Amino acid sequence: MKLSEGVEWGLHCALLIARAPNGTALPRRLLAERHGLPEAYLAKHLQALVRAGLLQAAPGPTGGFRLARSANQITVLDIVEAIEGSDSPFVCQEIRQRGTGAAPPEACRRPCAIASVMVQAHQAWRESLRTVTLDQLDRRVPQINRE
Amino acid sequence: MKLSEGVEWGLHCALLIARAPNGTALPRRLLAERHGLPEAYLAKHLQALVRAGLLQAAPGPTGGFRLARSANQITVLDIVEAIEGSDSPFVCQEIRQRGTGAAPPEACRRPCAIASVMVQAHQAWRESLRTVTLDQLDRRVPQINRE
Repeated sequence: MKLSEGVEWGLHCALLIARAPNGTALPRRLLAERHGLPEAYLAKHLQALVRAGLLQAAPGPTGGFRLARSANQITVLDIVEAIEGSDSPFVCQEIRQRGTGAAPPEACRRPCAIASVMVQAHQAWRESLRTVTLDQLDRRVPQINRE
Repeated sequence: MKLSEGVEWGLHCALLIARAPNGTALPRRLLAERHGLPEAYLAKHLQALVRAGLLQAAPGPTGGFRLARSANQITVLDIVEAIEGSDSPFVCQEIRQRGTGAAPPEACRRPCAIASVMVQAHQAWRESLRTVTLDQLDRRVPQINRE
């Protein structure tokens, strides 16, 4: 079970963008260079953040990315799921309905209790990420870098 | 981010084993047939549960698998981590130390706040799975099958 490296990239880039003075749009190249990331591959993740309504892409020579809403309206969960998707890592194959011990369909109208326990844990994970906004993250990460 | 299908197999098999009357050892073939699972591949996951001290393997013609401790002493988390490992799905590549905006090593003695938020969410996921024992799962899953 692994999250893509794009999640780390997306979170750090969103933080850089949130810190840009006066909402200046930050170009893709600058975002890539700041953390030594491959620009073409980073582009894919930035586009995912735009599609999710978290970033705005400003076109033109002075263009780049800025936040689409304020940093206290964007959660870590928003960014993680924009890049990774929101599916639970547990995929129920309904093996309770297979083999010599198969439960009949009428006994399987409700989700399997095993799947439910796994879904509940995924919700706990989501809730934990939902409680932290980009704004709060900004205050937790030292602002060492030049802006 | 996906859990291996072995997690579902391991949970269902542990439940069948927990339900075996008088702690009878259940043979690998029976476990595979009950849920229509490939026996050779299931063997790998059963061995992982033995290595983690959750199952005991009884050898010989009447052999098979039984619980290594009582069902109220085995949590869903125990089974999931025996099969999947306990690593956080978020792997921090320390990109804060890379690129033109790299933070100096002395500023990176503590874990990155972004990594910490992700670790905290993983702990919430683990805690949720730790609160459910095999015993409790047994009461939640209907006992439709013949034992």
